[in-house]
Amino acid sequence: MKALVYHGPGQKAWEDVPNPVLQEPTDAIVKMEVTTICGTDLHILKGDVPAVTPGRILGHEGVGVVTEVGPGCERVRVGDRVIVSCVSKCGTCEFCRSGLTSHCQTVGGIGWIFGHLIDGTQAEYVRVPFADNGLIPLPEKVTPEQGAMLSDILPTGYEIGVLYGAVGQGDVVAVVGVGPVGLAAVMTASAAGASKVIAVDGNKFRLEQSREFGATDTVDVNAGGDVVARLRELSRGGLGVDVAIEAVGVPATFGVALDSVRPGGHVANVGVHGESVTFPLERDWINNLTITTGLVNATTAPELLESIERGDISPEKFITHRFTFDQFDEAYDTFGNAADEHALKVIIAAGD
Amino acid sequence: MKALVYHGPGQKAWEDVPNPVLQEPTDAIVKMEVTTICGTDLHILKGDVPAVTPGRILGHEGVGVVTEVGPGCERVRVGDRVIVSCVSKCGTCEFCRSGLTSHCQTVGGIGWIFGHLIDGTQAEYVRVPFADNGLIPLPEKVTPEQGAMLSDILPTGYEIGVLYGAVGQGDVVAVVGVGPVGLAAVMTASAAGASKVIAVDGNKFRLEQSREFGATDTVDVNAGGDVVARLRELSRGGLGVDVAIEAVGVPATFGVALDSVRPGGHVANVGVHGESVTFPLERDWINNLTITTGLVNATTAPELLESIERGDISPEKFITHRFTFDQFDEAYDTFGNAADEHALKVIIAAGD
Repeated sequence: MKALVYHGPGQKAWEDVPNPVLQEPTDAIVKMEVTTICGTDLHILKGDVPAVTPGRILGHEGVGVVTEVGPGCERVRVGDRVIVSCVSKCGTCEFCRSGLTSHCQTVGGIGWIFGHLIDGTQAEYVRVPFADNGLIPLPEKVTPEQGAMLSDILPTGYEIGVLYGAVGQGDVVAVVGVGPVGLAAVMTASAAGASKVIAVDGNKFRLEQSREFGATDTVDVNAGGDVVARLRELSRGGLGVDVAIEAVGVPATFGVALDSVRPGGHVANVGVHGESVTFPLERDWINNLTITTGLVNATTAPELLESIERGDISPEKFITHRFTFDQFDEAYDTFGNAADEHALKVIIAAGD
Repeated sequence: MKALVYHGPGQKAWEDVPNPVLQEPTDAIVKMEVTTICGTDLHILKGDVPAVTPGRILGHEGVGVVTEVGPGCERVRVGDRVIVSCVSKCGTCEFCRSGLTSHCQTVGGIGWIFGHLIDGTQAEYVRVPFADNGLIPLPEKVTPEQGAMLSDILPTGYEIGVLYGAVGQGDVVAVVGVGPVGLAAVMTASAAGASKVIAVDGNKFRLEQSREFGATDTVDVNAGGDVVARLRELSRGGLGVDVAIEAVGVPATFGVALDSVRPGGHVANVGVHGESVTFPLERDWINNLTITTGLVNATTAPELLESIERGDISPEKFITHRFTFDQFDEAYDTFGNAADEHALKVIIAAGD
């Protein structure tokens, strides 16, 4: 088969590799129909994730059709069209049983292994461990492109942003950073009943797009003025927003999130950070804050599929560009230059 | 009447002052029977809380008998023996209605005003605003000394440590710092069903005492060795404790709490901090942590009274020293030198 192989920082190639084979009774093989690129893939390509070694097939998102199942698979069947969840999970360890599949102990403590510790989904075929848990049947009413948004970004924005942030009916929510995952938080916060969803970003295209995803207000950080003061103005009684969702991953945006919540508010960190932040506990010890962090558990895909079928959320809005498997270089170039290209998510589809 | 008056950093006096009078229809006057001293009072006396100005009567804890009520009081009656809650609350603003009485907007956004923004309880009489909400009737089976532990420390340890930390049945809990509030967290975590409560401190007396409050294990930070490694050894599977409660208020102890929790764990900050801490988000963004902070809401006093009546918790264990109102200097000296004096909480009682 062909697959997108990582060859060290800055180097990748769509090239011939051996087909994956079943290794465990609980494995399945999936023939990929569509995949997509995540910001994490860009980090890997920069060499920022040393656990990813040359020779690794990239990618942890997509939809395909099951072509083989091991004898230990009980639910998934050959011929099923499935979403490949970005998180692999045994389903039986203590962490999985408590819903914390992101830290499945059986797969090594971090459930994200595709395109990281094992070969990924930017390939014609992928081996899926614990396939009964890692593959989600795609309902007929949901397209493969829509389904691919449920591998990672929609559950991440929803679980780590909206659910961890405890967004409730009528809440005023700020989403700091509206790249794809931030937009997923905007979309699902809106669907969760937030009365205001304020998109904060420095990119005009993303801010415009955010309104399509349910943002009621936008704050352009490059427009001058005090971003935190503006968020407070937009909050109930000027006391601060109820929930701030950080979806960038740098100290400045975490600071905006922390500074803009009201007493008793929630800061849900979704961003992947590369350095420490300052937490002003001399100010915040008294503020009854809740701060959460997390890797997606990807346990809400069934719930999100129902929201799509009801028409409450429309994940096809994420897809701005389409490519085929022989165009991975162009797809990465477009996604890697998302701001200029006005790209949100790119779909790469099997050619036939 | 006589009261303990703050006269600027390092200066206080038990002296004659005018009796308090009703100012609002919802006020009551309470004749204090017992009061106690909080670490916060020591901070105030050092001049660390500039909002406390000379002339202020200190104190925010205690039990007494109602001597006058305003016409707006509906529940509290003259003659009632009551716990004075450290948090004042209107009961009707949006924050109060959501249980966040610590940030009652009507009293100015921070519910702790006794001995801070209005005169306090280290006095023969105290005026209590919103008396229906701020006074808790003392059941006959609970002594005034026990009741005084419910003004602040027991609700603080329970609400901000155990409830915000989401301590559940069977959890392994570390309490970092076992002064009075830390011991309140130990006692209520134990009553909440924690399977292990590990007391962490550098003071041998406090560590010994912690076992009386329900600690199953102790870690002496002055004994040498890696405290975080020891906490991990004591945790389930070596993955880290389920909940770490910080009850000191310095960066090092916050760091121990943060470093010792498992993925998916909770860090409940109870300590009053004077400086910022470093939050290593480059490590913890992926760890599905929940970090909480807070000032006590003091809404759990009724629940805690029931626990005392059932014998589940025994707040008299806090009381190591007893004084009378004419001995406030000795009481402060003892509490201010708690480590050497082997003091936990000191009771100061009306003489007659």
